[in-house]
Amino acid sequence: MNIIDHLKWRYATKKFNPNKVLSPNKIDILKQAFNLTATSFGLQTITMIMVSNKEKRKPLVEHTYNQKQVLDASHLLVICIQENITDDDVDRLFNTTQSIRNTPDHILDPYRIDLKNMMQKMTIEERQQWSINQAYIALGNLMTVCAVEGIDSCPMEGFSAEHYDRILDLKSKNLKSVLLLPVGYRADDDIFADFKKVRKTVAESTIEL
Amino acid sequence: MNIIDHLKWRYATKKFNPNKVLSPNKIDILKQAFNLTATSFGLQTITMIMVSNKEKRKPLVEHTYNQKQVLDASHLLVICIQENITDDDVDRLFNTTQSIRNTPDHILDPYRIDLKNMMQKMTIEERQQWSINQAYIALGNLMTVCAVEGIDSCPMEGFSAEHYDRILDLKSKNLKSVLLLPVGYRADDDIFADFKKVRKTVAESTIEL
Repeated sequence: MNIIDHLKWRYATKKFNPNKVLSPNKIDILKQAFNLTATSFGLQTITMIMVSNKEKRKPLVEHTYNQKQVLDASHLLVICIQENITDDDVDRLFNTTQSIRNTPDHILDPYRIDLKNMMQKMTIEERQQWSINQAYIALGNLMTVCAVEGIDSCPMEGFSAEHYDRILDLKSKNLKSVLLLPVGYRADDDIFADFKKVRKTVAESTIEL
Repeated sequence: MNIIDHLKWRYATKKFNPNKVLSPNKIDILKQAFNLTATSFGLQTITMIMVSNKEKRKPLVEHTYNQKQVLDASHLLVICIQENITDDDVDRLFNTTQSIRNTPDHILDPYRIDLKNMMQKMTIEERQQWSINQAYIALGNLMTVCAVEGIDSCPMEGFSAEHYDRILDLKSKNLKSVLLLPVGYRADDDIFADFKKVRKTVAESTIEL
């Protein structure tokens, strides 16, 4: 299959096969793909929680409009943002850059200072929105990676972040849940799998200049 | 190459080869991939402008912090949101669904009404932010599709949307520019192409529960 065939194969899976589990190799691909997501300035202020434990997922269903995908899927991915972005995050990025690339201080320092200034000028709400944007990039990346790998997924915005954060104890990690992506394999009887895709025509959604 | 190799090959291209142009087949893949992007409720309130004309791109450079990628790349993709979302958009989606899937009115109508109500409760700013989220999903999808197809790209948030909207006459189309993705082929002498990737470790960016 070419990439377009893969994207056409993908659909928002409504019913997962609860007995089919992703292999360790597929899990590793999803983790690496998330970590390789492009983020603004490379700052990576997002974290992926990967919940395999079904006992931990049971109490989440009622806070997801009772959508059972979060329980039945092989794994539940919860894309989270950091509660805040501080100078420490900027220093972590530039220290890592320095150790990986051996870039001299006098080249990196102006960028380090600029990025700290930029972040300091934002309110905490603006920093969170900035991180949320990155979470959506990760979601777009992960859905396509899943499609290429033959993994089913279902992107979800409709859940109570407050309850997720409490149940998964995210506050202690300074994280806030933003997006869900249950991943695994479709049930044989998910009638949505055979529905024709509904999209605008390419001529409606793209304009050439 | 497997998908992880493709994602590792990708980098934010700093210098494009101005003489290498994407084939019509690659252009078609990018258009289709954009159109196949998953969006919330499938509402597709985003549009992709594909600028091949270099004369049209010249005046954009100064409104992009003088980053020449927007001119030198084979094509400049400008991901736009609709200025607003109205009942007409919801009706367009459900009418298309009906014509493609032959779903009866009595099944679709409750969803049609719910989605209209949801949109009407939002302010125009909230509707725009909602569409911006979808633009980021498209960006994540497109960067990964480019990587798989051996197309170089450079995601950009840093530009004057106001000037872009004026120069590309987007207001007449009820669109607002949100994100840029110049696409094409890296220049042989882009020193950034050989830089080692800087990322957190997978153990830092992902947590298993």
